[in-house]
Amino acid sequence: MKRVLIANRGEIAVRIIRACRELGIETIAVYSEADKEALHVLLADEAYCIGPRQSSESYLNMTSILATALAAGADAIHPGYGFLAENAVFADRCKEHEITFIGPSADAIRRMGAKSVARETMEAAGVPIVPGTDGLIEDNQEALKIAEQIGYPVIVKASAGGGGKGMRVANNKDELEKAISMAKNEAETAFGDGGVYLEKYIEDPRHVEIQIIADSFGHVVHLGERDCSIQRRHQKLIEEAPSPALDEDLRKKMGEAAMKAAQAVDYCGAGTVEFLLDKHKEFYFMEMNTRIQVEHPVTELVTGIDLIKEQILVAADEPLSFSQDAVTLNGWAIECRINAENPDKNFMPSPGKIETYLVPGGFGVRVDSAAYQGYSISPFYDSMVAKLIVHGNTREEAIARMKRALSEFVVEGVDTTIPFHLRLLDHEIFTSGEFDTKFLEKYEV
Amino acid sequence: MKRVLIANRGEIAVRIIRACRELGIETIAVYSEADKEALHVLLADEAYCIGPRQSSESYLNMTSILATALAAGADAIHPGYGFLAENAVFADRCKEHEITFIGPSADAIRRMGAKSVARETMEAAGVPIVPGTDGLIEDNQEALKIAEQIGYPVIVKASAGGGGKGMRVANNKDELEKAISMAKNEAETAFGDGGVYLEKYIEDPRHVEIQIIADSFGHVVHLGERDCSIQRRHQKLIEEAPSPALDEDLRKKMGEAAMKAAQAVDYCGAGTVEFLLDKHKEFYFMEMNTRIQVEHPVTELVTGIDLIKEQILVAADEPLSFSQDAVTLNGWAIECRINAENPDKNFMPSPGKIETYLVPGGFGVRVDSAAYQGYSISPFYDSMVAKLIVHGNTREEAIARMKRALSEFVVEGVDTTIPFHLRLLDHEIFTSGEFDTKFLEKYEV
Repeated sequence: MKRVLIANRGEIAVRIIRACRELGIETIAVYSEADKEALHVLLADEAYCIGPRQSSESYLNMTSILATALAAGADAIHPGYGFLAENAVFADRCKEHEITFIGPSADAIRRMGAKSVARETMEAAGVPIVPGTDGLIEDNQEALKIAEQIGYPVIVKASAGGGGKGMRVANNKDELEKAISMAKNEAETAFGDGGVYLEKYIEDPRHVEIQIIADSFGHVVHLGERDCSIQRRHQKLIEEAPSPALDEDLRKKMGEAAMKAAQAVDYCGAGTVEFLLDKHKEFYFMEMNTRIQVEHPVTELVTGIDLIKEQILVAADEPLSFSQDAVTLNGWAIECRINAENPDKNFMPSPGKIETYLVPGGFGVRVDSAAYQGYSISPFYDSMVAKLIVHGNTREEAIARMKRALSEFVVEGVDTTIPFHLRLLDHEIFTSGEFDTKFLEKYEV
Repeated sequence: MKRVLIANRGEIAVRIIRACRELGIETIAVYSEADKEALHVLLADEAYCIGPRQSSESYLNMTSILATALAAGADAIHPGYGFLAENAVFADRCKEHEITFIGPSADAIRRMGAKSVARETMEAAGVPIVPGTDGLIEDNQEALKIAEQIGYPVIVKASAGGGGKGMRVANNKDELEKAISMAKNEAETAFGDGGVYLEKYIEDPRHVEIQIIADSFGHVVHLGERDCSIQRRHQKLIEEAPSPALDEDLRKKMGEAAMKAAQAVDYCGAGTVEFLLDKHKEFYFMEMNTRIQVEHPVTELVTGIDLIKEQILVAADEPLSFSQDAVTLNGWAIECRINAENPDKNFMPSPGKIETYLVPGGFGVRVDSAAYQGYSISPFYDSMVAKLIVHGNTREEAIARMKRALSEFVVEGVDTTIPFHLRLLDHEIFTSGEFDTKFLEKYEV
């Protein structure tokens, strides 16, 4: 692999350029008309405009991206996260053009992308799933019977869903009938696919996910967990590794379950198996993200393993450079997503020009950002300014370091979530480690 | 310890503020009239002007600093490196005012500060020293006799010396007589102390130093070595940990010698024992720096130990938080000192305003800097812009990462040594690891 096209923008495009450069691989950036001055364009070896500012006509424009890849002589395409990262059609089209898609096979993407199919696959592979219907709800009476068996509350979910859309909780029979029809309608509207299924509703769970990586020789390794329970409307705000809720035994069990999940779809590449963890320390498969995730750096800091490099190497048919035994978790890492949003105005986006930008530094501090002084945060894409990631010997040290780093982070010209993160890190429920995904609904921060 | 005054400026003042903040200690900055807009002033909890731009009247002004410490209610003073860091009189005066000097005792500073005394102390403690005179040269005939015994070439050194001043190499009897009188004159002029001693001249040695830290309970631990052989006129340019020249056995021997050196002067705090390592892997005590060093971050990155925090904690009479067994070296770290100098004009200083400043980031990259976009590098102090430190799993990965990080470091408005570092990291002698302190004299970079 000599030349990689990066079909993305923002901090993840910069992250991929960095990994390629360290591997001696040339980088080809693509950009929309709104991103002429973006950092990934300035840092890459080459950069090509692929369309107007609308994502649908640029970063989601498969034809334009593939044409650029072919014209520029790219051997491979790294899709980052979001945009085309979990698009099986795009993976197929890359293959047709003999360009390596840096990610799993189109088949693995498809089998994990359809939630009800993934549920069945996981059940067959022996991965714990939340009790519920086998496949889609075909018949409301059957659904009501299953709900009685597993006990209320239950949740109806869109098979094609994501981001909280097409989901409805029901506490009894009457609510369930309404929930099914509402979820179907919402799913039809949002995803063009009205298929829904039913699960027991896990109350106040933690979101704990396992990072895995697999090569094309059938080796699968897990790199421990990330706790992403601090969410606002299903958007992760803070992630950490390890999780305050896991011990060695549970980590081993969840790691093994994640590896089974990956093996069940002949997975190759970096991926994340997301689980719900309930109060009784029972865990259930939620979904698998068949791509690199925003929060991958916390795993990198506790394992010392460069996930993007490994992802590129396994895509180039290299074997994994380490075995499960070589993976050890060292200390504690926390990531705060710094967005250009006003936390005191309901997280309203605050696009605009960054007039002053001074990032924190020093021991144990990592900044992954595509921003710079004078750069304008665009209203057309996500509002991320930077990922601030710290490492410490203990959770306490990591929290103290994050507070120190946030306190010296200067961003002027746009509002940011920095003040919110500072308040959250001081919250006694956060510092206790005893929180779940409902934290921000239950407490004022 | 609740309030620490930082008697320094630049990146080390920022580094100390960061450590204090993470420990929950309030920080008091001091600054000269030239440093009103310096980052350490902006970051500290409080800041006081201590005098005009001349160091002698500000950062070296003991009375002004102590008066500020007393007025501001500081419990302790951290001297950083340079300025008053190895000034025994200042350590004494802190003690008189019941202010903790974050560093070793005045006695330890004195015993290591006088080079000929330190040589004798080390010899008595069983630390290998370069063969030479016992103490100062009192009688030229005696010196000539000793030179005959140990063999030419020999070197005459000022006992009060440093930075290459008051040093003269002699290849035979005639040269030695001249060397003694020239070194005496130079030492008298430079240090007001004409005392000189004689040592065998070690040809083309490596500079390998051992980081130690000791608490007030008599525990001494060493944290492995740093290789600082890449120097220009006795100024270190690149440092790395570990050293490409050491194996486990030699590391253990040098570590034990360094601990003996520290124990011989009842050392408490962080310190560095510098050794010359010759081609036959024999090592010799050179000097001990009784303070934190510029290059301490490479040790922090391979050990995971925060040296400034530990330094503060042992000064507060806490026991060391770890034992020798707990110290393990992980991967490889390299530091490049980025100075505002023009490497193509004989490293001429290039003070001035930084018009654009974009620091590198991402996995394994640490930046310790007091610069920011719009900041003016002052002609009155050292020309450092930033310390760029990287960590990788291997030396090769660390070098690739450093090149990647240097290539994305943008500093406009002043000349910097970034292009020089990029050339140096590509030099085959550097990448081979087979270099010594004469590297930059022998090769064009």
